[in-house]
Amino acid sequence: MTQDTGQQRIAKNVYAQRTDRNLASLKGTADLNPLEKLTLAARILAAEGHSGGLAGQITARAKDTGHFLTLAVGIGFDEACPADFIHIDDDLNVVDGNGIPNPATRFHLWIYRHRPHVQAIIHTHPPAVSALSMLGTPLVVAHMDMTMFQDDCAYLPDWPGLPIGDEEGHIISDQLQDKRSILLANHGLITTGKSIEEATYLAVYLERAAALQLAASAGGKIRPVDPDKAREAGAFLLKAPIVNATFAYLARRAQRDRAVPTGTEEEKPHSQDPTQDGLPVALA
Amino acid sequence: MTQDTGQQRIAKNVYAQRTDRNLASLKGTADLNPLEKLTLAARILAAEGHSGGLAGQITARAKDTGHFLTLAVGIGFDEACPADFIHIDDDLNVVDGNGIPNPATRFHLWIYRHRPHVQAIIHTHPPAVSALSMLGTPLVVAHMDMTMFQDDCAYLPDWPGLPIGDEEGHIISDQLQDKRSILLANHGLITTGKSIEEATYLAVYLERAAALQLAASAGGKIRPVDPDKAREAGAFLLKAPIVNATFAYLARRAQRDRAVPTGTEEEKPHSQDPTQDGLPVALA
Amino acid sequence: MTQDTGQQRIAKNVYAQRTDRNLASLKGTADLNPLEKLTLAARILAAEGHSGGLAGQITARAKDTGHFLTLAVGIGFDEACPADFIHIDDDLNVVDGNGIPNPATRFHLWIYRHRPHVQAIIHTHPPAVSALSMLGTPLVVAHMDMTMFQDDCAYLPDWPGLPIGDEEGHIISDQLQDKRSILLANHGLITTGKSIEEATYLAVYLERAAALQLAASAGGKIRPVDPDKAREAGAFLLKAPIVNATFAYLARRAQRDRAVPTGTEEEKPHSQDPTQDGLPVALA
Amino acid sequence: MTQDTGQQRIAKNVYAQRTDRNLASLKGTADLNPLEKLTLAARILAAEGHSGGLAGQITARAKDTGHFLTLAVGIGFDEACPADFIHIDDDLNVVDGNGIPNPATRFHLWIYRHRPHVQAIIHTHPPAVSALSMLGTPLVVAHMDMTMFQDDCAYLPDWPGLPIGDEEGHIISDQLQDKRSILLANHGLITTGKSIEEATYLAVYLERAAALQLAASAGGKIRPVDPDKAREAGAFLLKAPIVNATFAYLARRAQRDRAVPTGTEEEKPHSQDPTQDGLPVALA
Repeated sequence: MTQDTGQQRIAKNVYAQRTDRNLASLKGTADLNPLEKLTLAARILAAEGHSGGLAGQITARAKDTGHFLTLAVGIGFDEACPADFIHIDDDLNVVDGNGIPNPATRFHLWIYRHRPHVQAIIHTHPPAVSALSMLGTPLVVAHMDMTMFQDDCAYLPDWPGLPIGDEEGHIISDQLQDKRSILLANHGLITTGKSIEEATYLAVYLERAAALQLAASAGGKIRPVDPDKAREAGAFLLKAPIVNATFAYLARRAQRDRAVPTGTEEEKPHSQDPTQDGLPVALA
Repeated sequence: MTQDTGQQRIAKNVYAQRTDRNLASLKGTADLNPLEKLTLAARILAAEGHSGGLAGQITARAKDTGHFLTLAVGIGFDEACPADFIHIDDDLNVVDGNGIPNPATRFHLWIYRHRPHVQAIIHTHPPAVSALSMLGTPLVVAHMDMTMFQDDCAYLPDWPGLPIGDEEGHIISDQLQDKRSILLANHGLITTGKSIEEATYLAVYLERAAALQLAASAGGKIRPVDPDKAREAGAFLLKAPIVNATFAYLARRAQRDRAVPTGTEEEKPHSQDPTQDGLPVALA
Repeated sequence: MTQDTGQQRIAKNVYAQRTDRNLASLKGTADLNPLEKLTLAARILAAEGHSGGLAGQITARAKDTGHFLTLAVGIGFDEACPADFIHIDDDLNVVDGNGIPNPATRFHLWIYRHRPHVQAIIHTHPPAVSALSMLGTPLVVAHMDMTMFQDDCAYLPDWPGLPIGDEEGHIISDQLQDKRSILLANHGLITTGKSIEEATYLAVYLERAAALQLAASAGGKIRPVDPDKAREAGAFLLKAPIVNATFAYLARRAQRDRAVPTGTEEEKPHSQDPTQDGLPVALA
Repeated sequence: MTQDTGQQRIAKNVYAQRTDRNLASLKGTADLNPLEKLTLAARILAAEGHSGGLAGQITARAKDTGHFLTLAVGIGFDEACPADFIHIDDDLNVVDGNGIPNPATRFHLWIYRHRPHVQAIIHTHPPAVSALSMLGTPLVVAHMDMTMFQDDCAYLPDWPGLPIGDEEGHIISDQLQDKRSILLANHGLITTGKSIEEATYLAVYLERAAALQLAASAGGKIRPVDPDKAREAGAFLLKAPIVNATFAYLARRAQRDRAVPTGTEEEKPHSQDPTQDGLPVALA
């Protein structure tokens, strides 16, 4: 029996239009430059458990240069500063900055080549994606917070081996096609975005989605959501104001745990300055 | 063989009456105003893992106005301050304060309309409830700490899609009926309370209950407790002095991790002041 | 094929005797008084995840009085200070101190009555024990770090309901018999000790044991260890120098996260001083 | 259908050689002395969850003496300082330093005796390895980050009991043979290394591997990776520049959480100075 007392109901699309107008007022990330966004992206990913060791890369197109920005290998996502990012060309040669790229960054180049609108790429091995990747199972969209991956998360079922060559880049790029994200069996995740914020947002939610799928599948059989409703919700969750406001919130949270240095300090990258969170050289 | 050495046993209801007299002396939350309670509720929920992104809402009736208080969307539960709460009317229009409500707050209105004694509503997507919600399984009361949900936790078995419309509000309100809490398949939880403390307490324990159920079900078959004993224990655990003392304890704990600002600072909401835990505008 | 190159082997009992002499030099807890030990026990248990709300009690015999020391209800284990402990008689009446005992402390009295050598009792509902308790399964000793429970952990298979009466005390005490510990189905754990250190040590390791059992059973079928070897290892792990040195280490660790106040501050219990980690009375 | 647009592909071994040249520039641990490395190893292991109580040992050969360095028993890995390490001979007698070795260190001696190139040994009971060890299952290499254990992780299927004697040392050493690591059923892990960095790196990744295997096996059937590809990736992940740069990164991270004291303070070991993170002697 319904409790409805005759309350008038308004069509959902009326609310949807009002929502769009309102969301435009959300505080986003317009004031940040690319290096700040990349630094915050690294810190967010670290806070979400994506930074276990040296594995993983984050890259973005450098404006109007044909080059790319990436975190120097050896710097953890949790300790990244703006000056730790280097400029590389489309063969991974260092154009500017101190340090070298992760040698496994090569497959990023293949994706950028085939997807001109992709501005940023993230690749990590976070724990839940890693565990799920050992099961030979693609993502199952079974929760509202996973709907941004409906029809938009590819799956590479066979690990091509250590991904430092062109062959692996070709295989990964070919399997990704025009989707935003991909799960790599026995390996990890890749997310792409039309902005650094979007690629980061997808990486955060893909690891959380894997954690949900893993926890649920340990307890029983997962029931996927209706694909049409998932597409509608997913489109909503991918609106730029929501993506950017979420990135801004997660950045504030990550910074609270560990502040990004400001002013001149940031000019000095970790890899060149052992006294800045470096090893205890004064310890002996 | 019993070890009983003839010790006299007193009837349990004698102890129950003594307990009631004693519990009245517990330190509660009588000194707090609604904005403080809402702020602490948000902080408690964040400390318990309910704040993953922009999803989730917390609302309360504003006294004698027909309006409601809610946290402005874009502010995380972990960073909420009293000034981040806004006044909205029964169509989600902002009456007072800076910011906008979460557009998915609409279903709260449906619940308030049908349940005049409900003073506060919480909706979140915490990890264990989210994972459990993917299995098509209602809550199983199988632990003493879950007994407040005996006969008092509804279940919505089908996800109605992105809940920004009246239709979803109608469906959720209709399924909740006169229960305090509901689990939403493929989505999350809703708890209601005759006070902010009660809604918060239930949200905290419902997520913990889901975590227990999920962990246990991964390890074997769950044995529910006796329903009569669960009803007795549940009634005890819902006594106002216990609810309020638990809220007060969890608030102290949440504040220890991250203090709520006092004095004039609290007048300035996060959404309007980027220097207060805001983005690193001085970083470039 | 063995790699043994003829190295002489000495009988294990020779090493065991040498070990006993050496262990006597370990730094223990001899300098602490009972209130300090109880405070540190509460802090250790909190650091190990035993303090989720108001549930749980910790008690100890007060020397030569027939009375007991217990933490006032409403104070979390994580915030306990020496002055938060009260003296109660064998009917739970307060003899000295501010606050009231947890009404569910009554079953402790039954255990103390039947077990004159028990000096301290801990009862908690930590997450892994709670989840395991929902499965109707006793502890399986399948790891070296669980061997202190070999033949020494009872199991109460049926939840007697809200444990505030004599009946529940009788049932629990009767099932515990002369063992140190007991798992309570659908409820939690009880550990006893000939010292506060021992009861705490057992509570810490019993929750860890439950976590191991739960995690392992989710992944396959558990293989118990050989009972004779478990008895030998368990006797070693229950030696007083090891118990006390472990307590001292866990206490240092818990204090590092949250220091116990010293000097006169400790005279003021939390329940009476809202400014000491209390509610934000200055917040409005 | 492939997206390949005719991009030239270069043979992987060309990239591999370039990678080797580049990796040589990574910041490593060359500036650290053995006591600093051991201290940082203990801190890293603690940060990764290997330090639950007094169990576990870390040892290294002391240069040109035939002696060994080890952490005094009773000091947690999380609180280790350089002065907490003692020198022991090949019968566990203390040659220099304050404190005694863990009596279960004896099996290390057996390994050092048979493996002259082993410079450091770590033995711990971390949670995931412990849970996995209860299932009678060896490690399954099913993720890129586990490939350093391909063909290089032994398995001892039967727990020999409390490992304080020569018999247990013989059994363990005999089963390890010439592999770097071993999983001990119902017990824990042992890793060895040609450096302190390598033994630490392996212990960190072996616990993570066990966590992945356990999480995955709770959700379904694990698919191992191709052994040949695993060997190739594993050899890459064991290159000294990668091992050392990972150790350096994890050390920076562990220090950030809890700084290693510098200067004269480090001369004072924990076991002798109760005021340095010691018990609250001033508390009463």
